Amino acid sequence: MRTIENYESQVRSYVRSFPTVFETAKDSSLTDEQGQVFIDFFAGAGTLNYGHNNAAVSEALIKYLQKDGIVHGLDMATTAKSNFLRRFNEVVLSPRNLEYKVQFTGPTGTNSVETALKLARMVKKRSNVIAFTNGFHGLTMGSLAVTGNDFYRDESYGVRVNVDHMPFEGYLGYDVKTLEILRKFIEDGSSGVDLPAAIITETIQAEGGINIASKEWLQGLEKICREFDILLIIDDIQVGNGRTGDFFSFEEAGITPDMVCLSKSIGGGLPLALLLMRPELDQWKPGEHTGTFRGNNLAFVAAEVLLSYWENEDFARAIKNKSQIIREALEKIVEKYPELEMSIRGRGMIFGLECPQKGVASDISSNAFGEGLIIETCGSEGQVVKFLPPLTISEADLNTGMQKLGSAVEKIITQRQQIETGVEA
Amino acid sequence: MRTIENYESQVRSYVRSFPTVFETAKDSSLTDEQGQVFIDFFAGAGTLNYGHNNAAVSEALIKYLQKDGIVHGLDMATTAKSNFLRRFNEVVLSPRNLEYKVQFTGPTGTNSVETALKLARMVKKRSNVIAFTNGFHGLTMGSLAVTGNDFYRDESYGVRVNVDHMPFEGYLGYDVKTLEILRKFIEDGSSGVDLPAAIITETIQAEGGINIASKEWLQGLEKICREFDILLIIDDIQVGNGRTGDFFSFEEAGITPDMVCLSKSIGGGLPLALLLMRPELDQWKPGEHTGTFRGNNLAFVAAEVLLSYWENEDFARAIKNKSQIIREALEKIVEKYPELEMSIRGRGMIFGLECPQKGVASDISSNAFGEGLIIETCGSEGQVVKFLPPLTISEADLNTGMQKLGSAVEKIITQRQQIETGVEA
Amino acid sequence: MRTIENYESQVRSYVRSFPTVFETAKDSSLTDEQGQVFIDFFAGAGTLNYGHNNAAVSEALIKYLQKDGIVHGLDMATTAKSNFLRRFNEVVLSPRNLEYKVQFTGPTGTNSVETALKLARMVKKRSNVIAFTNGFHGLTMGSLAVTGNDFYRDESYGVRVNVDHMPFEGYLGYDVKTLEILRKFIEDGSSGVDLPAAIITETIQAEGGINIASKEWLQGLEKICREFDILLIIDDIQVGNGRTGDFFSFEEAGITPDMVCLSKSIGGGLPLALLLMRPELDQWKPGEHTGTFRGNNLAFVAAEVLLSYWENEDFARAIKNKSQIIREALEKIVEKYPELEMSIRGRGMIFGLECPQKGVASDISSNAFGEGLIIETCGSEGQVVKFLPPLTISEADLNTGMQKLGSAVEKIITQRQQIETGVEA
Amino acid sequence: MRTIENYESQVRSYVRSFPTVFETAKDSSLTDEQGQVFIDFFAGAGTLNYGHNNAAVSEALIKYLQKDGIVHGLDMATTAKSNFLRRFNEVVLSPRNLEYKVQFTGPTGTNSVETALKLARMVKKRSNVIAFTNGFHGLTMGSLAVTGNDFYRDESYGVRVNVDHMPFEGYLGYDVKTLEILRKFIEDGSSGVDLPAAIITETIQAEGGINIASKEWLQGLEKICREFDILLIIDDIQVGNGRTGDFFSFEEAGITPDMVCLSKSIGGGLPLALLLMRPELDQWKPGEHTGTFRGNNLAFVAAEVLLSYWENEDFARAIKNKSQIIREALEKIVEKYPELEMSIRGRGMIFGLECPQKGVASDISSNAFGEGLIIETCGSEGQVVKFLPPLTISEADLNTGMQKLGSAVEKIITQRQQIETGVEA
Repeated sequence: MRTIENYESQVRSYVRSFPTVFETAKDSSLTDEQGQVFIDFFAGAGTLNYGHNNAAVSEALIKYLQKDGIVHGLDMATTAKSNFLRRFNEVVLSPRNLEYKVQFTGPTGTNSVETALKLARMVKKRSNVIAFTNGFHGLTMGSLAVTGNDFYRDESYGVRVNVDHMPFEGYLGYDVKTLEILRKFIEDGSSGVDLPAAIITETIQAEGGINIASKEWLQGLEKICREFDILLIIDDIQVGNGRTGDFFSFEEAGITPDMVCLSKSIGGGLPLALLLMRPELDQWKPGEHTGTFRGNNLAFVAAEVLLSYWENEDFARAIKNKSQIIREALEKIVEKYPELEMSIRGRGMIFGLECPQKGVASDISSNAFGEGLIIETCGSEGQVVKFLPPLTISEADLNTGMQKLGSAVEKIITQRQQIETGVEA
Repeated sequence: MRTIENYESQVRSYVRSFPTVFETAKDSSLTDEQGQVFIDFFAGAGTLNYGHNNAAVSEALIKYLQKDGIVHGLDMATTAKSNFLRRFNEVVLSPRNLEYKVQFTGPTGTNSVETALKLARMVKKRSNVIAFTNGFHGLTMGSLAVTGNDFYRDESYGVRVNVDHMPFEGYLGYDVKTLEILRKFIEDGSSGVDLPAAIITETIQAEGGINIASKEWLQGLEKICREFDILLIIDDIQVGNGRTGDFFSFEEAGITPDMVCLSKSIGGGLPLALLLMRPELDQWKPGEHTGTFRGNNLAFVAAEVLLSYWENEDFARAIKNKSQIIREALEKIVEKYPELEMSIRGRGMIFGLECPQKGVASDISSNAFGEGLIIETCGSEGQVVKFLPPLTISEADLNTGMQKLGSAVEKIITQRQQIETGVEA
Repeated sequence: MRTIENYESQVRSYVRSFPTVFETAKDSSLTDEQGQVFIDFFAGAGTLNYGHNNAAVSEALIKYLQKDGIVHGLDMATTAKSNFLRRFNEVVLSPRNLEYKVQFTGPTGTNSVETALKLARMVKKRSNVIAFTNGFHGLTMGSLAVTGNDFYRDESYGVRVNVDHMPFEGYLGYDVKTLEILRKFIEDGSSGVDLPAAIITETIQAEGGINIASKEWLQGLEKICREFDILLIIDDIQVGNGRTGDFFSFEEAGITPDMVCLSKSIGGGLPLALLLMRPELDQWKPGEHTGTFRGNNLAFVAAEVLLSYWENEDFARAIKNKSQIIREALEKIVEKYPELEMSIRGRGMIFGLECPQKGVASDISSNAFGEGLIIETCGSEGQVVKFLPPLTISEADLNTGMQKLGSAVEKIITQRQQIETGVEA
Repeated sequence: MRTIENYESQVRSYVRSFPTVFETAKDSSLTDEQGQVFIDFFAGAGTLNYGHNNAAVSEALIKYLQKDGIVHGLDMATTAKSNFLRRFNEVVLSPRNLEYKVQFTGPTGTNSVETALKLARMVKKRSNVIAFTNGFHGLTMGSLAVTGNDFYRDESYGVRVNVDHMPFEGYLGYDVKTLEILRKFIEDGSSGVDLPAAIITETIQAEGGINIASKEWLQGLEKICREFDILLIIDDIQVGNGRTGDFFSFEEAGITPDMVCLSKSIGGGLPLALLLMRPELDQWKPGEHTGTFRGNNLAFVAAEVLLSYWENEDFARAIKNKSQIIREALEKIVEKYPELEMSIRGRGMIFGLECPQKGVASDISSNAFGEGLIIETCGSEGQVVKFLPPLTISEADLNTGMQKLGSAVEKIITQRQQIETGVEA
């Protein structure tokens, strides 16, 4: 730990919330150097939907390394890449009647977002883009411009240009019709908001506080995009890959985005990012957008293996069951501690426990760590506890985790009572 | 191959120069699905300095996967990360009297560059940055702004703000004193170039055409930076990690940059990027700059193993020997075909063969592919054949590769003669 | 007229609506070269509040020219400037308990707006500014960025940076609380709208369609500015100088802006623009913002003379009377032609006649020209007839003008009937 | 004077160099309230080429006011405007075979520059513009972006986008071929400088320090513009209107700019600005660029009268004579005080006396004021005394002024000697 403190930049963050040195991990648990085991309700911020060291992935990677498969391939054709592409079409795109072309961008989510924005502006010959309040799309300059949270900006970084932020569903209270506001700003040439090349959004704002767009809102958004010839980009980096129960989070709404950004879990924990685009948008010149690690072949190997989860309905069904378990457990906790005024929201296996009282959410996270549970907070004020267990977690582990969470909340009450009764905590 | 053509975006590029499906690779050779073996003088655009599937790396990765080591760790402390940090200090920083703090950015070079620019502007509270003609620093919006080549830009992407491009050494001919021009623009408040937060440069512009800055130029640049309180950022992504014979390409010049961007070979082919910064610049707030894959632990494992190359002088010495081999072989080729008016330049194991006649460089690359040699072109017009073999290549393979290159050039002469004599090619 | 067509750029605009060559003008009437007289309900787009060739102004100007008073003075002290400044304080600022410092910017409204935005950003060290839908603040690059109407922009002009547009009162319907939306976007660090240096607005959007902010809205806006330490800039260029009945349009609301932009009528038709600022904001370095014509002394002479109108209440009272005349006349017209679905809005002597049916507003304007009345349209679609007579117009002329307007509307009905009954127009 | 100090913003500047209240002016002299007369070698920063209260102008203005001519006309056709346009074509454009269309922008130079840049970007569909070191084009945001001097910028104003500054002739010493640098940056796609829509320059940088472009340089610049399809914009605001001896300053070089910005002296001291453009560039939509005071009819009247100076060669010849007088007088002064290491440069009736010793130039200006001579400094460090007398100055006044200047310099020597000999100044 001292090594980290001595040598690493103070920008480090999660190591402060979870101050131990982790050594190994399997499925939904992490083990530190002292041998303490933690249940993982964090899943690498949505990167480990299929668990740590998923057995099928580890086996495939070891075999691939043993036979000296290509590891780093830029955008040359390789067997591993070919296999992934074929399977991705067979298992994901074709059954959903999607004809997207696949672009392998640099292997991080922000790379995929930057690429989408570039392409949209190039194809539509318009510079403006609309994003939403509380949206999070990454921290390189292009993506940062569409990200809402000003914590990530500094006056001196320069500028955010050609981006307008519109209210996400519910941002102004659920009685305010945010899509009508959006439509008015777009259709009126005197609104000050220029016709955008694209609108980019998440379907569930994860970093932004588990804000869930309704089916109707997404459908309305798609309709506005069609009406005004605007490209619709869904950033499915955190809530795609089955997080909501379907492979893509937007399937339930029945919409077809013009571009989809995928990353995080697609490579099973290894860096990988894709941009899916309607074929008619694929107007790149060869080599016009590149990136050294766009051919991370170990990730192709992992990704191909993991597509098996989507060959039939079993996985989706299991997610729905576990969704129910989380919801019920959370409802009980909310009910049990009315004094905390908590509320929940969620879909599939992403849930937020809103804790309006200052400090409660971060106390829950830190108490949970003491109980052997890794769980993080989100939202503009960090006021939401964010549930993001691996989708592959066993029901047993899920229940254990929820119990630990219960204890973490209970401990807040106990601590409060101790303070009130003058007892030392 | 059809899979690639059907499903992948037309932005793909190298697959067009090297149209076959590669399956395995070892050290300095690649093998395609038909079993044809190619010698690799490209090295993943500088990512495979230590060769494909370096035995020590493969072994360590397999062992790590077998024991379920943490694969994806965000910025939590892990054993693998700790080990890397410790070794990096022991083997690289301490012996060179460098006290840099290490920031793990998203694992791509452009992420490291974006981070450096952000930090520089934040610390200095100035928005302007100076970059150089022909510089290449990446393609996300922040990095793209400092990249010279307009092929990567489109009028509609929006803007390049707060960046000025100054002439790199030799850009205006070697008789024009580029540093004096730079100094004049900086020191004169009426030049139209505002005092920058930072100057960013490569020491050898690799994509830009193997343009090599002299020791004196780099020293002069550092002096200007000190005099005007400007941060000096060296982008050592492509030519660091031993490419020039030293670990950092700027060691020979004896300068100490304020920040150093590292990526490509540092992770042995796995995605990894670092930003090194003087401790007093480490003014980040926790979590102010993040990225999902900044804890790619497989890359930490690989990187740690590879640091062994730098424990003594053997590796550096071997690079210098092989540098001599390349130089002599190239000189012979240049001499042998005066009609092609070629010239060479290079340092360590990066060389450029300038082919002023239109089409010659790309013909050499494509003939070489026919001979079983992978080699690419660079420069603003693709007029330079770029030699970038793995640093670990055996002298035997290096010689074989140079012979193949010789044949590739010879073939151009033959083809010309056939055309001239009316014989069908 | 042919001279104009041959030599002047096709950007010319009003000459197309009023296609004759005007030669002389007095008070509220214009006379063309053929001797036809027109009543002026346009007043130079708000520049001629005190009428054409106001007798007191003409006399003073002639006297000044005869005695060779300084005409062009940059920012040197002159008798004329001194006199104006002293009177402006005595008659306008002091009686209203305003302690503004006066900056003479270049003599056009857009110059004053550019200056205000610059100063706000400099003083607050923040780059963002908030403007409103349908706002019009000028067409130089800085002012254009805060102007809503996209007719004045072209994709290739480049960028609008560091500006966000929020809904003006009523923009989303009067049931939507626009100030609550504004507050939410400002107070929430994740809204994507950064804390602005300033909010700039008109109190009545004139070009934007005669959209009138209520007292309560302006007071609420000022409150938000105070609460979040944002500067409030009122652009009073078109509706200041008595247009609403008070010297400043914001007096009724009882607010005190941090800066006020004045131009148009302040110089009695001669180019002049001022920026008023709270003394503590006057942080300019000498000469930091300049402009060749900031000392247009003929305009100082005119401006000083015109301040007499504000020495007592008579002028304000007369405006209120004439406001009533206009309102009543318009109400009658609206009532008389229910098939046109027109509606009115206005305050003081600025009124809009909203004509929702396509083409009606511009037909009214053009019929009126035929009747000898100059009147223009405004609004994002040009759907509003804009009443802007000189404040000094006689009641007789005002009534005549309203009658002509009535005839212009009547003619639309007649024309429609002719079309319906098949009679040639 | 107290009025100014109490009420005017501290941004005021010239009033500090010339601290008295001026009341009247005629031809080349100014008189203050105490009756002191000053010879004017400043001419309103180039606005009073035809002198203060030029008799013909005053007479015409008085007559026009007496007959109630239109004063404020927006862009409606008026007799005064028509007359000016016709005469401008007869006297200026036709004889020089120029077929420019005339756009009346807002009546300040910066308005004309903003308009030119907008139009260039719109027509060429490119966002970049090239300007030169030490260039001065105005202080509204668009013009400020092409202005060199950083005194006028503040980090917080935001951004300068899509502008690159190249070295003006002589900027890097006269041995460095600045046009070759420009050409290299433009023709090389990897220079980091994108192909611009336009290049904007003055022929003599007045504010920038009386830097005079040679005929050859201007011709070379025009050639580069033609070769790369770039628009050439000459900002002739300060040195047009006869300052160099010809009506346009670029006539001597025989080039034909695509656009010409005119202001300052064109209206004889009254605010007026024109943009001249080749007819094929006149691609505006009606009303796409506007400005309240683009129809300042008093200025049209003055401008028309002043065109008489250009009906024959007399005026130009007289300028050349007076140029010789200034040059000889200055050469004598330079020679007489070798210890001041001064040097001169100039053309027509604009001259600079370079005073490399710190403080000398401003001391000369302030001593001159004491002698009854108004003269200013320029250059990036204010190190150049700038001679800009009215072109209509009598030879007698010119000689008197030069003598006063001589005394002002002499005084510096005397003061130095006093300091050296310990005598109180």
